[in-house]
Amino acid sequence: MATQEQSANGTKADADADALVLSNDPFHPANHICTLCAHFYNLGWVTGTGGGTSIRRGDKIYLAPSGVQKELIKPTDIFVLPSECLNLQIADPAKRVSHHDMPYLRRPKNLTPSACTPLFMTSFRKRDANCCIHTHSEWAVLATLLCGSAKVFEIEEIEQIKGIPKGPGKDGNLGYFDRLRVPIIENTAKEEDLTQYLEQCMEEFPDTFAVLVRRHGIYVWGKDVAQAKTICESLDWLFKLAVEMKKLGLPWTKQ
Amino acid sequence: MATQEQSANGTKADADADALVLSNDPFHPANHICTLCAHFYNLGWVTGTGGGTSIRRGDKIYLAPSGVQKELIKPTDIFVLPSECLNLQIADPAKRVSHHDMPYLRRPKNLTPSACTPLFMTSFRKRDANCCIHTHSEWAVLATLLCGSAKVFEIEEIEQIKGIPKGPGKDGNLGYFDRLRVPIIENTAKEEDLTQYLEQCMEEFPDTFAVLVRRHGIYVWGKDVAQAKTICESLDWLFKLAVEMKKLGLPWTKQ
Amino acid sequence: MATQEQSANGTKADADADALVLSNDPFHPANHICTLCAHFYNLGWVTGTGGGTSIRRGDKIYLAPSGVQKELIKPTDIFVLPSECLNLQIADPAKRVSHHDMPYLRRPKNLTPSACTPLFMTSFRKRDANCCIHTHSEWAVLATLLCGSAKVFEIEEIEQIKGIPKGPGKDGNLGYFDRLRVPIIENTAKEEDLTQYLEQCMEEFPDTFAVLVRRHGIYVWGKDVAQAKTICESLDWLFKLAVEMKKLGLPWTKQ
Amino acid sequence: MATQEQSANGTKADADADALVLSNDPFHPANHICTLCAHFYNLGWVTGTGGGTSIRRGDKIYLAPSGVQKELIKPTDIFVLPSECLNLQIADPAKRVSHHDMPYLRRPKNLTPSACTPLFMTSFRKRDANCCIHTHSEWAVLATLLCGSAKVFEIEEIEQIKGIPKGPGKDGNLGYFDRLRVPIIENTAKEEDLTQYLEQCMEEFPDTFAVLVRRHGIYVWGKDVAQAKTICESLDWLFKLAVEMKKLGLPWTKQ
Repeated sequence: MATQEQSANGTKADADADALVLSNDPFHPANHICTLCAHFYNLGWVTGTGGGTSIRRGDKIYLAPSGVQKELIKPTDIFVLPSECLNLQIADPAKRVSHHDMPYLRRPKNLTPSACTPLFMTSFRKRDANCCIHTHSEWAVLATLLCGSAKVFEIEEIEQIKGIPKGPGKDGNLGYFDRLRVPIIENTAKEEDLTQYLEQCMEEFPDTFAVLVRRHGIYVWGKDVAQAKTICESLDWLFKLAVEMKKLGLPWTKQ
Repeated sequence: MATQEQSANGTKADADADALVLSNDPFHPANHICTLCAHFYNLGWVTGTGGGTSIRRGDKIYLAPSGVQKELIKPTDIFVLPSECLNLQIADPAKRVSHHDMPYLRRPKNLTPSACTPLFMTSFRKRDANCCIHTHSEWAVLATLLCGSAKVFEIEEIEQIKGIPKGPGKDGNLGYFDRLRVPIIENTAKEEDLTQYLEQCMEEFPDTFAVLVRRHGIYVWGKDVAQAKTICESLDWLFKLAVEMKKLGLPWTKQ
Repeated sequence: MATQEQSANGTKADADADALVLSNDPFHPANHICTLCAHFYNLGWVTGTGGGTSIRRGDKIYLAPSGVQKELIKPTDIFVLPSECLNLQIADPAKRVSHHDMPYLRRPKNLTPSACTPLFMTSFRKRDANCCIHTHSEWAVLATLLCGSAKVFEIEEIEQIKGIPKGPGKDGNLGYFDRLRVPIIENTAKEEDLTQYLEQCMEEFPDTFAVLVRRHGIYVWGKDVAQAKTICESLDWLFKLAVEMKKLGLPWTKQ
Repeated sequence: MATQEQSANGTKADADADALVLSNDPFHPANHICTLCAHFYNLGWVTGTGGGTSIRRGDKIYLAPSGVQKELIKPTDIFVLPSECLNLQIADPAKRVSHHDMPYLRRPKNLTPSACTPLFMTSFRKRDANCCIHTHSEWAVLATLLCGSAKVFEIEEIEQIKGIPKGPGKDGNLGYFDRLRVPIIENTAKEEDLTQYLEQCMEEFPDTFAVLVRRHGIYVWGKDVAQAKTICESLDWLFKLAVEMKKLGLPWTKQ
């Protein structure tokens, strides 16, 4: 458990690093991640240190730390990576550059880099996303459990589906009569080991903006915070609806 | 996805248009829509850009924009229409004046008019309403699903029914022994195509203050914000109760 | 629907009446009712103008108005009655002094006295209570529905039962092995007509601090706000638990 | 019911005692307990005066009082004990030093010491914990009910399990493939009588950071507030998931 109160740095180099996260702009990524995490906590998405989020802006990637109370994160708790790190080898476990060993521009003392880091980076590199959200939503987990061993969660003819874009580079959102398909990958013992499966899944489902992780949660990304967050909300709404439908004996699709 | 940060206008004409939405009065429609949307977000009614609301005051109609985070709307994001637009042809798809082409007095740059616009206008024109709320409440959607193909949601002998007025021009609210009947129309691919069915439904159910849209949500209106909001709350309470009753094997009506 | 914005009075006599509800003390009943109602709204107890609350202090009774958004009540919306009104004939429908005709010390213009008034007064007179809360909690309503035609809700061996006092004039609270019994009366078309049944029920159940109203909600009282509120919370917690237990096939009592 | 408004002391000795709980540091235990209790109230953990929390810092133990509205606690409502009290005989009912008779350094007038005190102290003494949280969470209670007469709640292969440490003195947290086992003790008529069973249970389950109390709630502890709170949140998340899984016919463990 990191000591959140002690994460600010102390030396001259530290001061330079602190400048990366200190800003009066509420939409600066270091501030924005803090308000998002507090909001996600209230939504039940990052309970008990679970989940996290990352924003890329220009040549930098900002990341919430590991294992801390997400609703209490401060800008000085934020890790910063250069965007060129997206070229690092992270998916192949044999050749992986660990998130512990990446060339952080800023690395708060007493805090640990998040094991979600390579997964956030994968969404940035493969989808040109600039924000990625990882939740431990109960509705997402229950939806994966209700899918049994199926590799995709599917639902159709629900208006909220129109909150999900058709696909990267495609114009507009899914229509009411389109079937929403969210792929599911199996969980691994270590979060970072999900990276290769996330990458494969993104290739198999080139249009998806989200990947469910069975018995674990979901990764959702977008071109910006607003897109990632609203997709994540729409999906969570649909997962909750799907769980309630199952209790009431209502089918998810017209089969 | 619109850029909410860039919606304020810039020219002289823009400044005139901005004056339509800038006020220190918290109950000015442009301010009121913002606080209502933030409140509705917390109630789960406008998750992930879904839903919306509109207020008419005197000769103007104020509208929340399309496809944005409703809890973050600012007064400068509000569209304004002259009330005389209520005479426009909007129900008939063949002759419809699109919500994209209406003579807005104020049209925020980078934002899109809501496809709910013709539906809000229908409630204003046909019911002389001054506020209309559209939610994507999960309870409303589940209630429509539990009704199967029935055209009306019905419940009786629940005290909260007394929160619903008897009908436009009728004195007082429904009684405890009155059966509440909320009509349901089928969803369409495009939101604006609901307009003709909403209009027909209002004629068929001249006393109703709300129309459910199957697998989608609900439209609720009233003579003012307080009436529309409290009817919407009472109905949502009843839909949630109805869903829980179904799980517990309790009938909605005495048959 | 009352106009909450217009409820403040204007004449000299009005100013005297206003002095009854204007205070810098947050625990003055006129202020306290406002904060309580906003809190109860967030708990789902007074949705859509339903429910209400009343406090007696010394020779005065303070009451929330009828048919308004409870979370937006202001001190100037509060009705004030002299405590000597507790001697009025209110239970017998044939001889009843209507809540519309009581000698209010303060009666906000454009607002309507609450039909809960005689029920609040009954708890003050018969139990020497000083605060009474009426909720439309969904859990209370579902609990009454799950009781079928039974006249009492019963649950036992749940720690939270210890939040309920043994009875007026009795020392201490119920024990873990005591069975909690909350009586249920049938609903009537008009709220004020419940008064005689509430009164009879209080006589039949001399130890109870609450009476459920089938398909409607609950009335809970206490010697002060803290007691009434904490009993109401404990009961609501138990009703929700009972509903969940029923879904899971768990019995409320040991056979 | 204690009078929270009257808990501040008045004499010189009282002033010295007040100094123990007055601080500008939001993380001073007397302040921290207040913000935690308000937060736990919003989580549904301390409804209607139920539940509580305690923090040990250095040679002092700070405790929330009994039977008050936990969300309204003020620093002057806090009891203070010397840490050397951890050597008092508290488990054996025959020799027990009652929580009423302990040598409090500060004892607010009109308030009653919590019957949870010996249980909090047991976690401090036997586990070297510095924070202990007691909740009446509905999910914890339902989980114990769904376990029937089983002495342990068990669940496996859910990512959130990784929020629970392996055990005192052990490095790191449980893994995804580890089975989480939370022991359950039976409830007693008096809270303080749980002490001996809590103590026995801690010996029988040397790795556990929490003990469920059937039909009652849970005790959770940690080396600091952050650890106790995040474990408590992770467990509550898991109990809620487990209840939902049971409704949906999903097993908690493999086979």
